[in-house]
Amino acid sequence: MEERPVVVLGGGISKFAAERRDGTIRDWMVEAVQEAVQDAGVEIEEIEHATTSYFSDHFDKQLKQGAIFHDSIGMCPKPNVRVEGGGGTGGLALRNAYAYLKAGLCDSMIVYGAENMGRHVPSDVSQQFIAMASDTDWEYLVGGFYIAYYAVMIQEHMRRYGTTEEQMAMVSVKNHRNALHNPKAHGPMKITVEDVMKSPMIAAPYKRLDCSLLSDGAACLILSTEEWAKKHAKSWQAKPHIYFAGTGCGTDFMRMGDRPRPNPGICHFRGKQVASQQAYAMAGIKNPLKEIDVAEIHDAYSGVEIQSYEDLGFCKHGEGGRLLEEGVFDLGGELPCNTSGGLIGFGHPVGATGVAQGVEIMLQLRGEAGPGRQVKGARRGLMDSHGGTGTFVAVNIFERRD
Amino acid sequence: MEERPVVVLGGGISKFAAERRDGTIRDWMVEAVQEAVQDAGVEIEEIEHATTSYFSDHFDKQLKQGAIFHDSIGMCPKPNVRVEGGGGTGGLALRNAYAYLKAGLCDSMIVYGAENMGRHVPSDVSQQFIAMASDTDWEYLVGGFYIAYYAVMIQEHMRRYGTTEEQMAMVSVKNHRNALHNPKAHGPMKITVEDVMKSPMIAAPYKRLDCSLLSDGAACLILSTEEWAKKHAKSWQAKPHIYFAGTGCGTDFMRMGDRPRPNPGICHFRGKQVASQQAYAMAGIKNPLKEIDVAEIHDAYSGVEIQSYEDLGFCKHGEGGRLLEEGVFDLGGELPCNTSGGLIGFGHPVGATGVAQGVEIMLQLRGEAGPGRQVKGARRGLMDSHGGTGTFVAVNIFERRD
Repeated sequence: MEERPVVVLGGGISKFAAERRDGTIRDWMVEAVQEAVQDAGVEIEEIEHATTSYFSDHFDKQLKQGAIFHDSIGMCPKPNVRVEGGGGTGGLALRNAYAYLKAGLCDSMIVYGAENMGRHVPSDVSQQFIAMASDTDWEYLVGGFYIAYYAVMIQEHMRRYGTTEEQMAMVSVKNHRNALHNPKAHGPMKITVEDVMKSPMIAAPYKRLDCSLLSDGAACLILSTEEWAKKHAKSWQAKPHIYFAGTGCGTDFMRMGDRPRPNPGICHFRGKQVASQQAYAMAGIKNPLKEIDVAEIHDAYSGVEIQSYEDLGFCKHGEGGRLLEEGVFDLGGELPCNTSGGLIGFGHPVGATGVAQGVEIMLQLRGEAGPGRQVKGARRGLMDSHGGTGTFVAVNIFERRD
Repeated sequence: MEERPVVVLGGGISKFAAERRDGTIRDWMVEAVQEAVQDAGVEIEEIEHATTSYFSDHFDKQLKQGAIFHDSIGMCPKPNVRVEGGGGTGGLALRNAYAYLKAGLCDSMIVYGAENMGRHVPSDVSQQFIAMASDTDWEYLVGGFYIAYYAVMIQEHMRRYGTTEEQMAMVSVKNHRNALHNPKAHGPMKITVEDVMKSPMIAAPYKRLDCSLLSDGAACLILSTEEWAKKHAKSWQAKPHIYFAGTGCGTDFMRMGDRPRPNPGICHFRGKQVASQQAYAMAGIKNPLKEIDVAEIHDAYSGVEIQSYEDLGFCKHGEGGRLLEEGVFDLGGELPCNTSGGLIGFGHPVGATGVAQGVEIMLQLRGEAGPGRQVKGARRGLMDSHGGTGTFVAVNIFERRD
């Protein structure tokens, strides 16, 4: 029998938006935390430890923001740790909670994440900050921007496998559509493949509607040991039981020029392959497409979702686009992906993103995702969260046991 | 019997300096890692996981630096996580390694930390960056600087307990003197209490020689499970066995005005009391002064060391200064503190600092600290690492078992 099984008690998400003018980032954080605490049916005073998730000191011009969030939600003097891994920060934070709980450093853990990167940060400034997440000694100097790195990666995928711009547009259509049923989403939209194809080109083949959103927002997830849940959490009596079944992490060379070619080649995320294999081994998953019922994918750009289907082992290399066209990843398909809307439709306040993925999967496994979004009978869900051009990847798996 | 005991296999430290002009931060990191790998008697290829320790994106204008260090030392595609908690970052990173190893996420872990905050960053700029680690909505705006916060805290300690400026100067004399025997130290100096008292006043009662140093540098520690050590590490055969015996973490309100008065009052670090009590409970320590043989203390300013003696429970509140005068914390005393020189004599490249504390304690427990610095027969050592004005505190304890 598994020792100290880790369970998911409750979650909360603030409204994600292009610009929240109500309060500051700490207020949005409180909004998410209050929702999570209520959902879990616990008192904040009972929770023993925290993990803080945010990306950069730059957006908010605030160092040591973890201490401020921790203070704002009433967790002092209890322990806290901030983790960070670029766009993968939230996924790493969930993995961190698993580690501390499993290690016995605490029996309950609150994970809170937020980012303040919407319109209050001028877009040239936020793009520059994000560019500083490239290698500033080698890449930044030559004008490297993230969308260009990703464009190069998907161009190679198109060349090698025949992946098409229309397939990418279909990802955007799906994720914007899914977001229509998510009341917290930043970018719900009913659009067509043609709309995406006609949107302004940013870095070929990526157009504006292929891109994820710079959002303001916060998210919170509360986890504990199974034993603690039984004693402290009202949600344990009232809700289906959700377990943390697997976690993995992988990394890759910073610069694409350093990555081994032709295999895996720059069109694949090696760190994601490593991370998912670790998580599958822990969760006892052999055939991910059959054994996973719902997944949140790091769709920083539409093509990344197609690449990720493959690197997560949902299908063979080069088959992602075709399976997408067949509807495999739509709601009602074999493995619905980004039911929340993903980074493209829901939004991408970096430190909150991976935590919000966890909340979505929890809701799906409980059967609480609501009309238009719920995957029927979902029992196992995957979260895929990555930073840089796949330099930091965390994959986590929850499952319902009852 | 303890399950999956965590052990310390080896460590390395780059030269700490006011300005390293040789190479970049990644080169200093490689320097520390190579020393640690050699000391541990392992191959980097064998190590399964990493924890990255650095403070801020600002000093190096590089986001996601964890990915760069990880790549530079040849760890891709293996898992990594960056942790951060201001000045307490390094101590939190060691605690993190303990959690991941204990949880079974890996059997070996490399912890590497560095900061690039020496003279290449103009001192007004680095002070401003550090000021942004105060509450930028409430404190930064009124011109709050760290030394002033600490001055206020020690003024209250002086008022309440009669702690004197001479006692603080004695901390500085001791730590600069200890650094004379540390070949990696940034600030070794043979000085007198009078020298400290005559140095320029910065924020009363703190003078220039009461302050820690802004340094360039890196440090690395390699840990594993006991079982992994037996199979993989040459140091396990060749060296005394060092175990990770306890860890704790505590936090406090960001703003001093919010802290409960009169107890603990602004002259005490509540987070440190919490953190050390957790660590003592794990390590089975009842009387720290008697049961701990050597300690590295977070002496950001000289008075902080005196406050920390008390909050770590080495003595009662108000007795720290007197015991210091009696030589209790000198080499040869009952509990030598900051044998490395501490932040004042060794230096304070933030992300490296707490990791370097771990290396010092490992060397002390092995009996390898060298002439002029070795504590005879040391078997248990404590590391105290904190951020902000004690808003994030990590306390870790190693012990020798043979």
